[in-house]
Amino acid sequence: MEKRELLYEGKAKQLFETTEPDVLWVTYKNQATAGNGAKKEMIAGKGQLNNQITSLLFEKLKEKGIPSHFIKQLSETDQAIEKVAMFDLEVVVRNVAAGSFSKRLGVEEGIDLPFPVLEFYLKDDDLNDPIINDDHVLALELATTEEINELKEKTLKINDALIDLFKQVNIRLVDFKLEFGKTKEGTIVLADEISPDTCRLWDLNTNDRLDKDIFRQDLGDIIPLYQEVLDRLTQL
Amino acid sequence: MEKRELLYEGKAKQLFETTEPDVLWVTYKNQATAGNGAKKEMIAGKGQLNNQITSLLFEKLKEKGIPSHFIKQLSETDQAIEKVAMFDLEVVVRNVAAGSFSKRLGVEEGIDLPFPVLEFYLKDDDLNDPIINDDHVLALELATTEEINELKEKTLKINDALIDLFKQVNIRLVDFKLEFGKTKEGTIVLADEISPDTCRLWDLNTNDRLDKDIFRQDLGDIIPLYQEVLDRLTQL
Repeated sequence: MEKRELLYEGKAKQLFETTEPDVLWVTYKNQATAGNGAKKEMIAGKGQLNNQITSLLFEKLKEKGIPSHFIKQLSETDQAIEKVAMFDLEVVVRNVAAGSFSKRLGVEEGIDLPFPVLEFYLKDDDLNDPIINDDHVLALELATTEEINELKEKTLKINDALIDLFKQVNIRLVDFKLEFGKTKEGTIVLADEISPDTCRLWDLNTNDRLDKDIFRQDLGDIIPLYQEVLDRLTQL
Repeated sequence: MEKRELLYEGKAKQLFETTEPDVLWVTYKNQATAGNGAKKEMIAGKGQLNNQITSLLFEKLKEKGIPSHFIKQLSETDQAIEKVAMFDLEVVVRNVAAGSFSKRLGVEEGIDLPFPVLEFYLKDDDLNDPIINDDHVLALELATTEEINELKEKTLKINDALIDLFKQVNIRLVDFKLEFGKTKEGTIVLADEISPDTCRLWDLNTNDRLDKDIFRQDLGDIIPLYQEVLDRLTQL
């Protein structure tokens, strides 16, 4: 399999066609952004850490019966993935109040939520990815009622699996963002990435942040933290 | 029945205790606000127009089998209402894209929505009444699952009734905000007000705005418009 033309370039990844019609080539970039690109920086080593963490987690989820678009890791920064039709949705799961949830709803950071709270966001950079409800998803034709139910069900299953994995390496899965796509057979599968860029990960004992909040809030170098997450997950 | 001490003063209404334990006295104020109070003005005549429009609509809804907290109109600016425990929620119905829906989701104003889109907002001025989904309602304990379903069901029924009433007087019900309360018997009833302050009302033929958007957008005097709405509804 060879890499062909660039299909799409996002804030954190490049997507290439390949010589295989149903396979794409993803290259994880070193660019870090926050506030929908308002803050932007190149951070050497981020791309390979997120690629390795995502590859490892997608492998572990597969072992737990949760398929994704992930096929295999190609290099430190590269992955082969199945070509899927993406939903224009971000699905956020919140186990603990933090970030925009705390700010928007006035709930103190660190409070355990009574159940995993799910949120949909419209994937649209120009609109700053607004939060939407199920009616919006339907009215904007982003998914059908059946697909909404399936997305929620899969998300909760992934949440259980990830909570378990992170707990084994002493990490509290505070919240995270997922994206989903549909294979050409019509199956909904997990897609995009799962990394400290897309999750809030706190050390289970100290509550030390091991994620992109450190970049968002200018609190220091994220590379040792992302490396720490990878090192811990490698013990699994 | 006599008016007693002031219980609560909001942006558009004052609420007084009365000599009857289960009855409150509402006085509609002339204050107009927009952007959660960022813009504020006294507009002579607004209070009595909104009181008369709300009284008329609550009467009409009652005739259609939809109860509310409304007991009777006491004067041009005053109403007697049943004391209910309010949900800290605003329920918005959107029949046509407009306002924050259009801005947030990038949908052109005036587009008919495929079905009435419901939205919940957390009633909290300090947080600027953020939009929330069903999970947030449950996690913040603003209502139970059964109550959410009942609120949605009642809201859709009220929407049907109001669309019908406004259509008879050549007005397009674009969107509106409702609030609900619980009687001491535990029945969920419609509460608050229904007026050009809380609805987007467009002339059915010209699409001329007959509501608070004219104030929000500094497009002129709202009193003749609110009077026009009242005059038309009086023909019902």
